[in-house]
Amino acid sequence: MIRIAIVGFGTVGQGFAELLERKREEIRKKIGEFKVVAIADSKSSISGEFSIDEAIKMKREEGRLRDDRKADELIDEVDFDILVEATHTKLDGGSGLSYIKKALKKGSHVITSNKGPLVADFEGLMTLAEKKGVKLMYEATVGGAMPVIKLIKRYLAFCEIESVRGILNGTCNYILSRMEEEGLPYEQILNEAQELGIAEADPTYDVEGIDAAAKLIIIANTIGVDAKFEDVERVGIRKITPEAFNVAEEKGYTIRLIAEVSKETLRVSPRLVPLSHPLAIKGTMNATMFKTDTAGNIFVAGRGAGKEETASAMLSDLYDIYVSN
Amino acid sequence: MIRIAIVGFGTVGQGFAELLERKREEIRKKIGEFKVVAIADSKSSISGEFSIDEAIKMKREEGRLRDDRKADELIDEVDFDILVEATHTKLDGGSGLSYIKKALKKGSHVITSNKGPLVADFEGLMTLAEKKGVKLMYEATVGGAMPVIKLIKRYLAFCEIESVRGILNGTCNYILSRMEEEGLPYEQILNEAQELGIAEADPTYDVEGIDAAAKLIIIANTIGVDAKFEDVERVGIRKITPEAFNVAEEKGYTIRLIAEVSKETLRVSPRLVPLSHPLAIKGTMNATMFKTDTAGNIFVAGRGAGKEETASAMLSDLYDIYVSN
Repeated sequence: MIRIAIVGFGTVGQGFAELLERKREEIRKKIGEFKVVAIADSKSSISGEFSIDEAIKMKREEGRLRDDRKADELIDEVDFDILVEATHTKLDGGSGLSYIKKALKKGSHVITSNKGPLVADFEGLMTLAEKKGVKLMYEATVGGAMPVIKLIKRYLAFCEIESVRGILNGTCNYILSRMEEEGLPYEQILNEAQELGIAEADPTYDVEGIDAAAKLIIIANTIGVDAKFEDVERVGIRKITPEAFNVAEEKGYTIRLIAEVSKETLRVSPRLVPLSHPLAIKGTMNATMFKTDTAGNIFVAGRGAGKEETASAMLSDLYDIYVSN
Repeated sequence: MIRIAIVGFGTVGQGFAELLERKREEIRKKIGEFKVVAIADSKSSISGEFSIDEAIKMKREEGRLRDDRKADELIDEVDFDILVEATHTKLDGGSGLSYIKKALKKGSHVITSNKGPLVADFEGLMTLAEKKGVKLMYEATVGGAMPVIKLIKRYLAFCEIESVRGILNGTCNYILSRMEEEGLPYEQILNEAQELGIAEADPTYDVEGIDAAAKLIIIANTIGVDAKFEDVERVGIRKITPEAFNVAEEKGYTIRLIAEVSKETLRVSPRLVPLSHPLAIKGTMNATMFKTDTAGNIFVAGRGAGKEETASAMLSDLYDIYVSN
């Protein structure tokens, strides 16, 4: 019986719990029985006898869970095999970092959707996981359902990855591809994106390339480039004009916010991309191009956000924990 | 010590042996020491004391290996942990099928780059492997270095795959994308492709969609659709005219040879693809779009052929055999 504890019970945590329930039969067949033994949000929790449906209902209707016991205490006091950490991203690691450390120290595997802890202390967390003989899985932190992390670690295990170039922020890509299509100014398309719920009221985190840079740091460390968030050369998309698109298009190019890591480069910046290049992808999709020594160029794309897509990536982590050694 | 036997020692077999040698150190670190204990082609073999370099040199200079012992006998008589089967594709399975069966029956894992045996008897081979508790790996049979098989079996393990649509033949895609760009007739572009070594002197296997259909059968069976080669509705690219491209382009489309499997569909045929769609990819790349229930649409592309790319996919199989349970 795999015992799962969930901390962070907003969209991502609830989405993961719902998907566990929906896929219970497939999970049972491929890796075995599981039970969610505890769930916590920032101020409340539930453990002991409860159902996933019940916990979700409680959280939605009452804005909190049954008990006053907090995540910290829960991790200390409840026995579990996997901690699913789905709290909000804080680039200094935030409480997510301490939850993950606590769980690893207890000898529990961790699946996280939260970039913050990995950006704050990738090396420290991986060393701790290795020392304890457990796994720290983080597919959902980069590009939602787009397969990136396990592609690097497993599929390309024997390849040298010379560079990774990615479109790692769906909001920016939506804005840029709409600017390309409509020839309208940044501010106007941003307003449209905000109305559609694609951009936040304060879009800084996305449009200044902060989100993409955080993901880039996780990719960089995964391919063995020891880099910190402050090392990323970062330029956002606010200053791109419709005229820039016109000039680019005349030469057969468009403009995309590209996050790139190689031996020489660590940057997030608007770049010219040939119109026929796979990275000229439109809309909110995320996309990544891996340049390798022996597997050539490999390109992947997928939904970079979304409740189900994120949960789906986390479920692929669950699979790998139990079907790997 | 992992003992590897290789049967089929043409471009693919030699490429795999070379890559093993080149990546010896990385392989040692991640899965352990290995030794190639035997190599066979259709009429000769080498076993006992020899080096990979020596075997390749012998094959290239003398057109054969040291001993008269054939692949069949070698598989019976030599002890090994993994058979690497890299003989030429015959859709009835050919000798590759009997080599694989022999090896599985002995309790050996198998890595194959050969579509034939899987097209001829997918179900039988998988059942045999399962019965013997060994693995039959076949990433290289579909789209070279493009990640497809393990993406389905591992990354999307808990997803329902509603459809797979792919560009699975680089020769056809080269011809079609050149026709799109140049507005020239099929025959002329075919000649160009033949001169460049992208198309064979007899291009039937590629341009009639036979190769793509064989790969589609392997994908179909991997996602659980029990289908045979004869079940594929198949139309080639010979009859596509420059005018067809003109008409398509006026409406914002191009034409690609798409292999598709879903509950209702099993076909390889020229299809209209929106110019902005990822499957409108140009050149000899292979590309695949997976439509899933919870991970959304996932798109991958990569080099579908090439000695190193194929060997690289086979090496990812080697990794998975030893880093999975």
